[in-house]
This record gives sequence, structure tokens and C-alpha cells, in this order.
Amino acid sequence: MTSAVPPPLRLQFRGGDAGNWRVRRQLTIAGESLPEVAHLDTAGTASPARWILTGFTSNLRYTAATERQVLAGIQAPLGRPEARLAALLPIRKSPRWWALAQDERLAIYRRSQHYAIGLDYLPAIARRLFHSRDLGEPFDFLTWFEFAAADETAFDHMLDRLRASEEWQYVDREIDYRLAAAA
Amino acid sequence: MTSAVPPPLRLQFRGGDAGNWRVRRQLTIAGESLPEVAHLDTAGTASPARWILTGFTSNLRYTAATERQVLAGIQAPLGRPEARLAALLPIRKSPRWWALAQDERLAIYRRSQHYAIGLDYLPAIARRLFHSRDLGEPFDFLTWFEFAAADETAFDHMLDRLRASEEWQYVDREIDYRLAAAA
Repeated sequence: MTSAVPPPLRLQFRGGDAGNWRVRRQLTIAGESLPEVAHLDTAGTASPARWILTGFTSNLRYTAATERQVLAGIQAPLGRPEARLAALLPIRKSPRWWALAQDERLAIYRRSQHYAIGLDYLPAIARRLFHSRDLGEPFDFLTWFEFAAADETAFDHMLDRLRASEEWQYVDREIDYRLAAAA
Repeated sequence: MTSAVPPPLRLQFRGGDAGNWRVRRQLTIAGESLPEVAHLDTAGTASPARWILTGFTSNLRYTAATERQVLAGIQAPLGRPEARLAALLPIRKSPRWWALAQDERLAIYRRSQHYAIGLDYLPAIARRLFHSRDLGEPFDFLTWFEFAAADETAFDHMLDRLRASEEWQYVDREIDYRLAAAA
């Protein structure tokens, strides 16, 4: 029924001139953009940064036990050698979303098939969610994805489906960074 | 359906020799204690502190929309002039709790009648929940209560019921500070 859950992990995403990921493309999907950068550093290097986004991993807020068990059996870890591409999607949800109660947010999450859509792209697309909102950060979530070059079309398809969902009507700021391993 | 929700608010609870609340009693309910202090400062004074606990307010994690509506109609605000007593209950839940999925945690919360028990003591007991776990703090939650002296027996009764619940089997560290307004 239970599995070991690591304590919250704080991570900085540093946009600047150097870093372990090269920015291939930056697309502002909704709301205000961020200054363009050539690299993203996630390795904790104290390199100069034009901007820093901070998030933490946490317990799952919507996933049910049976769903989590399915995910655990399918999903791939981060850091696979073949996953040379990555994406960082900083996302902010609207005040209207945060004014909803837990059951209302859960209902929208379910109607939007958020879990089912993600499942369709496993294990190709590895994913980790960082929470930012509670730190007073400009975004609520920093979602991180890693995949092989051959799977980027599938990744785009997944984003199309999510962005067409009811849940995404509550997203009022979103930037789509596409990255390649710099090393 | 929705109501305005303020953005997360960060607050420090500073234990030391000075502060806007006088410590009347400190009782360690479970797990390791904290050094005893004479006062607690919540007013943002940069007074020297023996320890500092930090938390943030956030969106409700379990309360349903209908429940929230009921609460909004009954609950009292913080800072009532007659509420000269307060309590700070730093609480940590066990790794076993955090390893549960959202639906499992919600089921325990409901079986434990957490919402219903709290409701029985409104509007006498005003309450605000601060989250700490995601900041890497020693406690997961800092729960703050304010009430008039005449209502402390009722407050004790509420705690007895909560501590006897299934949910509290997952509490592995808890300290009970009873405070009085210092001014």
C-alpha cells in the first residue's frame, strides 16, 4: 500500500549563459515571458543567472493509490542516457483555480483526463513535478520532462491534448522551454 | 462557488525571551521537544530567538467546497480582542502518512471526522493552518488557534478527540504551546 517517499527536494533552475542544458527553443504559451537565455543550469552550479526559478518535489496532490501503483510500474526515471532532450514548462494557474476547493480541483483534473493523458506517453516521457507557488515564486509549478529525440513528436501531441483540456483553461502563464543535454 | 483566496503568506514563529505572546505552558505530546522559551513572537520583530519555525498558508488540501462554505459562514477571524489566549501546535506526520496517496490520506481524514470535530468548536476557536514540510522544516504543520479564556476547556476537549482519531496515529511529533497575549 505504501512506498518510500523521499522528503521534499528543493531545486533551482538557473537561466543564463552556461549550464548543463542548452536552450533549443523558448515559446511563451500564455502570459508574460521571461528574458531569453542560451542555457539552463539544473546542476547546482553557482553560475551567473538572468533568472532563477525554484521549486520543490512534494507528495502527490491528486493521484490516487491505484493510479500511483500503475505509474510506478510504467514510468521511467530521470537521467536515462538516451533521453538527450528535455523540456521545462513553468506554469501558473489563475486565482480562479486556487479559489476552488480540493474536490472541485480534483473533479476538473479528472474530467481533463490529466492522469490518463500522461499515461499514454509512458515510459517514453519521464516527468517530475516541482511546486513553486508556496514559495512565493512567479510560477505555481515547474514541470520537467526528459525524452529521446525520437519521442519529441509524441511529447508535442501530449501537450496539445493537455492544453485543450478544461484544466488548462485555468493556466494563465506558461512558457515552453525545449532543451538538449549540453555535455 | 469561488471566493478570493490570498496568495501564500509566509510567517515566522520565533521562540525566545521576548514577543507578543507569553508562553503559559509547553507540553511535548510526541517525539522530540524544543528548548523551552518564555515568549513567542509572531509580529515579525527581529528579536533574538532560540528557535524559529516557519510556515506558509496555502490552498486547502482536503476540505470540500460545501464544507468550506459552511466554515466560511461560521468561523471567526484571528485577532478578536476577546481571544486573549492562543495555542501553537507544531505537528509532524510520519513517513508512513506521506507515503499514502491523496485518496488514502483523504479517506483517513474523513474517517477521523477531522472536519466535523473542528466544526463543533466554531466560532469559539479561531484557527489558521501553516504548512512547513515543503520548506524542509522540522515540523510538517504549524497550527495556530485563538480563543477566549472561557473556551480553553472546550479547546482541550477538541484536542482530545482529534488525538484519539485514526489520523493522529500518523502524528509522530507534536508540541502543545499555550500562550497568552503579552500586551
